[in-house]
Amino acid sequence: MSYRRTPRTTPTRYRERAHYDRDTVHRILDEALICHLGYLNAGRPVVLPTTHARLGETLYLHGSSGGGPMLATKAAEGAGRGLPVCVTVTLVDGLVLARAAMHHSVNFRSVVVLGDARAIDDPEEKLRALGTLLDHIRPGRAADCRTPNPRELAATGVLALDLVEVSAKVRAGGPIDDPEDAALPHWAGVVPLGVKAGPPVPADDLDPATPLPAYLR
Amino acid sequence: MSYRRTPRTTPTRYRERAHYDRDTVHRILDEALICHLGYLNAGRPVVLPTTHARLGETLYLHGSSGGGPMLATKAAEGAGRGLPVCVTVTLVDGLVLARAAMHHSVNFRSVVVLGDARAIDDPEEKLRALGTLLDHIRPGRAADCRTPNPRELAATGVLALDLVEVSAKVRAGGPIDDPEDAALPHWAGVVPLGVKAGPPVPADDLDPATPLPAYLR
Repeated sequence: MSYRRTPRTTPTRYRERAHYDRDTVHRILDEALICHLGYLNAGRPVVLPTTHARLGETLYLHGSSGGGPMLATKAAEGAGRGLPVCVTVTLVDGLVLARAAMHHSVNFRSVVVLGDARAIDDPEEKLRALGTLLDHIRPGRAADCRTPNPRELAATGVLALDLVEVSAKVRAGGPIDDPEDAALPHWAGVVPLGVKAGPPVPADDLDPATPLPAYLR
Repeated sequence: MSYRRTPRTTPTRYRERAHYDRDTVHRILDEALICHLGYLNAGRPVVLPTTHARLGETLYLHGSSGGGPMLATKAAEGAGRGLPVCVTVTLVDGLVLARAAMHHSVNFRSVVVLGDARAIDDPEEKLRALGTLLDHIRPGRAADCRTPNPRELAATGVLALDLVEVSAKVRAGGPIDDPEDAALPHWAGVVPLGVKAGPPVPADDLDPATPLPAYLR
């Protein structure tokens, strides 16, 4: 099963790196901890980092009810529309060093989602979305914390975006130098990069008897 | 020395997390390996990952001469303008787990740059910008690879953006729970996150006698 390719999700360069199958897209969205949300503010592009989580074919984005993206969405919805957005997640997998300056690159996996975002107002859907966002941080966390009360729920903003116009882009593997450069004396290869988690640091006021939950070990 | 705060670089929420001093902004831009570039395509926002590098108060962005951002910039310049962009870099430093769902957060350092990008056409400035981009990957690399020839230089696109309307946002430290939640049984604290580099992997066709350069050790 694949997302339908559209002119807007067809890259102008390196088309062989584009992917539209749902598995590839879902894996990248699920592995990435944050996304970058692009929207228009007074006609100019704004890009802000935020957290996201996928539930089926819906992408939820976290914000606050007074934040810029939520205010822009409310303004768009007042005019009967959603907010045109572009949500991009990028995982950096390595530095690609080639003999030629030109062929240096980065190994990465990215997803671009285009669409109109809507604000989640229904308290039940908002609670479900927030649980999905918490479990995206570490699976199991949503069931192991205090649920939002109505005041907190009202202060939290959640945007939803359907996964319809979606593409992934993947660059993997070593450098691709021109044959005539192969004998140059410069080192060529890949420096793998990844995200590393350090040992959890308890809050200053945490009871030392509180066990570290299994999902953090 | 600080960047001048403008209405567009004043966050609507968590204003105490905003920073405008050049040192903070420069450090974040210099540490981040990639940025997310937002621009308009047919009136809708598009956000793409790319590499960047700072030289003084100029931010260079890497692309190809046939890529979307470069085509949009050339179109804007044809109309006598630069391309309105928002360039955002984000470093994720940790997961913040609070007792209350509401107070979960992410420790991060981000920079948002607003402005009008211009295409670098002058071959000398383009070469200097590409050297800055290579040294951003690993300082020293620009001098240790084959310089672009004129054909390669023409195929490479570089955008420049002056650091004028700029802000940083930083969230650090542990969770901040409400006092009445302090005795809840849930673990609270921070899971530190960072970027880890693995051992360099030589290209398949690299002469095994090629030493690993000092800047990769």
